[in-house]
Amino acid sequence: MRYPQAIQNLIEKLSGLPSVGPKTAERYVFYLLKQNEEKLKSLAAAISELKAKTTVCQSCFSISEQSPCSICNDKNRRDEILCVVESTQDLATIEATKQYDGRYFVLGGLVNTIEETGPEDLNIDKLIKRINGGAVKELIIALNFTFEGETTALYLNKIFKDRLKISRLAKGLPAGSDLQYADEMTLTNALKNRNTI
Amino acid sequence: MRYPQAIQNLIEKLSGLPSVGPKTAERYVFYLLKQNEEKLKSLAAAISELKAKTTVCQSCFSISEQSPCSICNDKNRRDEILCVVESTQDLATIEATKQYDGRYFVLGGLVNTIEETGPEDLNIDKLIKRINGGAVKELIIALNFTFEGETTALYLNKIFKDRLKISRLAKGLPAGSDLQYADEMTLTNALKNRNTI
Repeated sequence: MRYPQAIQNLIEKLSGLPSVGPKTAERYVFYLLKQNEEKLKSLAAAISELKAKTTVCQSCFSISEQSPCSICNDKNRRDEILCVVESTQDLATIEATKQYDGRYFVLGGLVNTIEETGPEDLNIDKLIKRINGGAVKELIIALNFTFEGETTALYLNKIFKDRLKISRLAKGLPAGSDLQYADEMTLTNALKNRNTI
Repeated sequence: MRYPQAIQNLIEKLSGLPSVGPKTAERYVFYLLKQNEEKLKSLAAAISELKAKTTVCQSCFSISEQSPCSICNDKNRRDEILCVVESTQDLATIEATKQYDGRYFVLGGLVNTIEETGPEDLNIDKLIKRINGGAVKELIIALNFTFEGETTALYLNKIFKDRLKISRLAKGLPAGSDLQYADEMTLTNALKNRNTI
């Protein structure tokens, strides 16, 4: 037996979500079937309005309510420090620490040789233009410590090392971590970057 | 930083899905933001049409395209065997084996003392009416082997044991299973229900 067309159709569409297979999509659909009509309509409306009600900030390229976004518009932020992140989500994660008062720049991805994402697919030309503006003195590279993140960081370093102070997020042990469960690489980094107290 | 209202709003709505928390919902939303407008509209339409395009079969109470559903309408199916399942999904799972040619009945849940679901919240009165019709000779109870499933099975057995042959799905080892990883309960059942070859 196949489910009714409307159910099959929605299962297929939801199976496209990240890490969602047909079984999970099926659970979602049967959960939705138990909701009232009004709740479904409001979910549908939220999905169809998603893009119309958001925009890309033409200054930092984060997804935001208006362009320029509230951070780029904030006069109390320091223009001389620019934090380069992969995505709007990473920007939000750093912003949640409330420890950073500089500006951001969203690359929109990482250099990835397997998926054939080259520097030309990212906002790197716009980053160069921003740096050419002259206000930025320090570039904080806040990219993932993965192969793709490291490649992209190396690339950015090559372009900007003669013109700017370039820094990266510290490598070390996470807060509250247990030494005996740390991997060798993390422990090696933590030893190398040890701090005098 | 909070995300734009449209993003926050959708994150909140998607967080209601089974086993989806705010972090997973956030991943879904940013995935959706990368899709084109047309794809979002068609997903929204599929969700808002979900209930309008499905109905509940008034004979077996499964979610179906029309009432009676294709199985209840099928003249080649045997009326004398009725398989009681918890949900439309369980019905579909049994149907996928292509080994069963009787009718189905969807209870719409299980007796659950913690969630205060009593027999009166299930389709049990409709099941009694169906049995009173007289066509059914055997009731196959195909409910989960959980506490709730067992309770419901006991309850059904109490109501119908004097009038019908009642059977349950066999307990034993799953196909392709490795004895050394079987739990004691499963192995005990497999021993008790051993078959002569």
